Amino acid sequence: MPTITIEPLIRRPFAEFGDIIQATPEVRSFLINKGNARRFHDLATVVANGEDARAIISIIRAKPYCLPLTLSMLERHPFGSQAFMPLKPARFLAIVAPDDHGIPGVARAFMVGPNQGVNYFANVWHAVLTPLDAETDFLVVDREGEGKNLETFDLSDPYIIEQ
Amino acid sequence: MPTITIEPLIRRPFAEFGDIIQATPEVRSFLINKGNARRFHDLATVVANGEDARAIISIIRAKPYCLPLTLSMLERHPFGSQAFMPLKPARFLAIVAPDDHGIPGVARAFMVGPNQGVNYFANVWHAVLTPLDAETDFLVVDREGEGKNLETFDLSDPYIIEQ
Repeated sequence: MPTITIEPLIRRPFAEFGDIIQATPEVRSFLINKGNARRFHDLATVVANGEDARAIISIIRAKPYCLPLTLSMLERHPFGSQAFMPLKPARFLAIVAPDDHGIPGVARAFMVGPNQGVNYFANVWHAVLTPLDAETDFLVVDREGEGKNLETFDLSDPYIIEQ
Repeated sequence: MPTITIEPLIRRPFAEFGDIIQATPEVRSFLINKGNARRFHDLATVVANGEDARAIISIIRAKPYCLPLTLSMLERHPFGSQAFMPLKPARFLAIVAPDDHGIPGVARAFMVGPNQGVNYFANVWHAVLTPLDAETDFLVVDREGEGKNLETFDLSDPYIIEQ
């Protein structure tokens, strides 16, 4: 089986797949509330396309995975972005793939966190939510509405994801 | 000065002001990802009205306040909702007021958390972000776009908020 080695989550290689949600000195920030708070502004855009579609906030409570793991399926959401932010400092994997004529190209795996989240762009192939260390609650911002917003692809040759 | 006693955050009294973001057995949930995760679905709707407006995700890092505190200003956002979710278990206050002919009516203060967040509906009077125990990072989902989306009101008779 093909093997993917996990990469650190940094902006440039991830930029084609989504936003990194993180409060770092590199992102634009400014003081608000008479100096009592700092806003790290506009880290991600929420997309919810389609008539009568809404952007919604949910919580997903996900069990952890162990490494190495076998990746046999990728999915994408044509009409909406999907953001995942852990509600405690925790690590998870962002496994993504570029599109190759309607199917996933070669996948990559990024180590997210602690204190990071991701927002997958609409129509980006990605794996399901994959925390690593413990059961973790994630705040999720994605789309609710009519239309087939989920496409899945079963990999005939599954990947092994390893550190 | 008028005094407000902090109330627990429960759904019914808060329902006119916003959504409670919380994974509890009472909210609709279902298993996803082959049983590896549970989705507490559609806890809040993101509203970002106006041409060319976007819903965005930001992080606000806010210093804590001490009780009792003096509340002298409320604000509202006519064109968008505003969600706040702490990125670690933490408490904060949701101070809100009904509208009374274009100005805030009598305010109420709700204790949020731990493991809770809120989503203020568009145009609901509320106080600035008020963590209580420690400096806290919050994930914020609100609106970016043209138009005057911030209205503030200075209270001529400030409130004392106490436990």
